Amino acid sequence: MAHIQLDPTLPGILGPLALRPQLRKSLSEFTEQLMRGENSLTRGERELIGTYVSALNECFFCEQSHGSLTQHYLQCDHSVIENIKNIHESALISEKLKALLAIAGSVQQSGKQVTTEQVEKAKAEGATDLEINDTVLIASLFCMFNRYVDGLDTWASQDKDSYRRHAPQRAEQGYVRFN
Amino acid sequence: MAHIQLDPTLPGILGPLALRPQLRKSLSEFTEQLMRGENSLTRGERELIGTYVSALNECFFCEQSHGSLTQHYLQCDHSVIENIKNIHESALISEKLKALLAIAGSVQQSGKQVTTEQVEKAKAEGATDLEINDTVLIASLFCMFNRYVDGLDTWASQDKDSYRRHAPQRAEQGYVRFN
Repeated sequence: MAHIQLDPTLPGILGPLALRPQLRKSLSEFTEQLMRGENSLTRGERELIGTYVSALNECFFCEQSHGSLTQHYLQCDHSVIENIKNIHESALISEKLKALLAIAGSVQQSGKQVTTEQVEKAKAEGATDLEINDTVLIASLFCMFNRYVDGLDTWASQDKDSYRRHAPQRAEQGYVRFN
Repeated sequence: MAHIQLDPTLPGILGPLALRPQLRKSLSEFTEQLMRGENSLTRGERELIGTYVSALNECFFCEQSHGSLTQHYLQCDHSVIENIKNIHESALISEKLKALLAIAGSVQQSGKQVTTEQVEKAKAEGATDLEINDTVLIASLFCMFNRYVDGLDTWASQDKDSYRRHAPQRAEQGYVRFN
């Protein structure tokens, strides 16, 4: 049971957002632009950053829902996503993305945890100012999503396969499908 | 110096948001609706929740900027805002708002920190489901703002008076003034 009365057919963030359709609209538009709009970071890389932060925050719904999208976009094996907390050690991702994930990991703790060294490392690996900006913003946004989802104790399916089954359809629909 | 190149005339979150005008627009609209739209929580109460979370996150820009708005809306003495981390013990605010601030304080740590007891206490003091929803969402949003502002090490004036001087004008303009 969630902390407040929510539509029991809507999992995770969808339940509370249904209480305020106008907020759902503007937040969906913001999320669509940041996570799927034109960007030198691919959609898969951006979802990977969000999934990494959600895993660090131990938000099951966000980790499964965005992890399955990441797997869909990157066409990677599910074991990569299952082990996402250690993805920064994986040979599967670029040194630039590893450096950006280190920044995202600091943001998950506190904005003040991001160091000049982390930023310099990302720049040395080829990250642009905009990519660093977007990494910090995506990591911050997921700290918000994770808190909203878990702060209200929302319902989430425990069937991990169901997240993966629906990922292609969700990738096609994007984030503004409910507006 | 911020971690990335930003317009040096724009303090706090305004610097990085200027890099992505479309994101600034949707985020401003979301913030305007949540913080100033029709709501049984007053604008001052909502700004107080955001200021409280910003203080717990030790985000100077957000604490000063939203603290001065809170002072403006609530017409309270500045010492109340200076001491905001202890506001939940103050006789100046209602028991309901204290209960909501306790929830916001848990959200600042993690969504999972919010307890059934905290929610039941808020309901017993008269908080509605929507007010609890909005409290969790505001606290989550400020965890995002604080991380974005500090994660990029943005510039902020250290002159606390300047935040207070501009508060009436900022309250009149709202959050969508840059779109």
